[in-house]
Amino acid sequence: MTMDLRELAKAVARELAARDQVTGRGAPPERQPTTGSRRDHHPAIANPGISTHSPPAGVRWVRDQARIADFIDHTLLKAEATASEIDKLCAEARELRFAAVCVNPSWVGRCAKQLAASGVAVATVVGFPLGATSSAAKAHETEVAVRDGATEIDMVVALGHIKSNDWDHVAEDIAAVVRAARGHLVKVIIESAALTPVEIIKASALAREMGAHYVKTSTGFHAAGGASSEAVALMRMVVGDALGVKASGGVRDCEAALRMIAAGATRIGTSSGVSMAKCLGQGPLPVGDLLTVAHGHGPSCSTCQAGVAGTAY
Amino acid sequence: MTMDLRELAKAVARELAARDQVTGRGAPPERQPTTGSRRDHHPAIANPGISTHSPPAGVRWVRDQARIADFIDHTLLKAEATASEIDKLCAEARELRFAAVCVNPSWVGRCAKQLAASGVAVATVVGFPLGATSSAAKAHETEVAVRDGATEIDMVVALGHIKSNDWDHVAEDIAAVVRAARGHLVKVIIESAALTPVEIIKASALAREMGAHYVKTSTGFHAAGGASSEAVALMRMVVGDALGVKASGGVRDCEAALRMIAAGATRIGTSSGVSMAKCLGQGPLPVGDLLTVAHGHGPSCSTCQAGVAGTAY
Repeated sequence: MTMDLRELAKAVARELAARDQVTGRGAPPERQPTTGSRRDHHPAIANPGISTHSPPAGVRWVRDQARIADFIDHTLLKAEATASEIDKLCAEARELRFAAVCVNPSWVGRCAKQLAASGVAVATVVGFPLGATSSAAKAHETEVAVRDGATEIDMVVALGHIKSNDWDHVAEDIAAVVRAARGHLVKVIIESAALTPVEIIKASALAREMGAHYVKTSTGFHAAGGASSEAVALMRMVVGDALGVKASGGVRDCEAALRMIAAGATRIGTSSGVSMAKCLGQGPLPVGDLLTVAHGHGPSCSTCQAGVAGTAY
Repeated sequence: MTMDLRELAKAVARELAARDQVTGRGAPPERQPTTGSRRDHHPAIANPGISTHSPPAGVRWVRDQARIADFIDHTLLKAEATASEIDKLCAEARELRFAAVCVNPSWVGRCAKQLAASGVAVATVVGFPLGATSSAAKAHETEVAVRDGATEIDMVVALGHIKSNDWDHVAEDIAAVVRAARGHLVKVIIESAALTPVEIIKASALAREMGAHYVKTSTGFHAAGGASSEAVALMRMVVGDALGVKASGGVRDCEAALRMIAAGATRIGTSSGVSMAKCLGQGPLPVGDLLTVAHGHGPSCSTCQAGVAGTAY
């Protein structure tokens, strides 16, 4: 594990260095993605197979001097989450300056009020966690969420239609949400643990073509399991430099989080962000250093010691 | 267990007999509930606390000469269900004349085509399984489902708002779906295993007041578990003769199904309906006989022998 991680860290460092030569030293990302006509018109839908390699608006690229908190979507998605638990989530996100909170749609308005002008995004979920509602319902759920104050939409792909080999449905399902989000950041949850490698590749490519901004591994609610570094690496390979990759589902300790980042993740969905931030410091650290912190991390790491005692959501 | 069941069966028989004296011998239920202006106006919402004891349109009351199939919502809700699995579900429901199929919204149109003029209803789920999306999204999801051909809507209650003691939100959330369903049958899933007895009572009473037609125990996706005969009995006690009660989640064999019916359930949500129908026969049988079939049912019962090998969804 340690050896693999070191190799991955080196590979990521090489990749980052190579990209920096091409794209320039990673510009600070925008917190609020602008509404761009490019997204509204979906060139990839009009011309399937044609996509651009330039990063879409709203994708945060973490290059150098990153804090672990910059990667964290501070997540609370269990059905019985209460108003006071949501308030605590927002307070923690504000204090530790996480990338976002990630909550169910009925809490978006409450979070948007509490996080106004905080720099913390409000992410919510659509068609969650089964991905099996109608595309029209997903689109409308997105519109309502944006109206309520969500700036990031984590939608679940139509898993049953992937398994039915109905890729036209999968494509239009994603496109409907991207249209409804009107330029706001869309993450496509592909439920990677329930997919074959070929399905992961196809779904990730389709997310990119349909104008989404992120591919995300997992809902955290599927019996097949959550994120794996192998899935993250495969998704990163497919989307290249064009999209973000979010690892979520069962990422409970900072060793796991760093493994996901080393494999190519630019966001981590977890409920353990507070302990991770405490454990790894509030930074910023050079990304390379952040990744190599994981070596021999076990004995001194409070979140790793907590291990399975932590809950995913 | 056997003693309890016999007592329950006697109690149900007594209750049914007493009701029959008052309401007349249970009229055959309508397969397709009519769209009634009463539902559109929601007298209970305009006058909370005031509700009628007459059964609302579309509630099927099973009295005498019932088949086990009359109770069954033939259910397939897993995220990765394929088109061919949905087709098989419909074919089985048509052949065995189940009360309904219960599928995710993206499959409603397909089922409605296959089950046209079959007498089998198309039930779908809304806000499923977390119940934590916005009320506006639940209402729109309902409208789309009805447009696509659903005649029964199984909505999930706002569980987090129950736990936050925000009963106004819970009430309006249910009412929004009842309005959107425009007279079609609405079942309110209260996730009883995650509730206290007092919360079960309040949620059931609210479902009745807001104009729903059924209370339903469980999504089958919650870690706290599925249906229990205790929850069914409590829900039946609260809604009396005014609403149906659906037991769902973990009802895998016919002994469990009969236990739920004895406790007051008028629908059973299960993926084991085919084996139950084979085991208990296609009837009709007097309900009392159907219930007492369960005595010593274990050794000769194919579905009971299958036991935990069956899947809930």
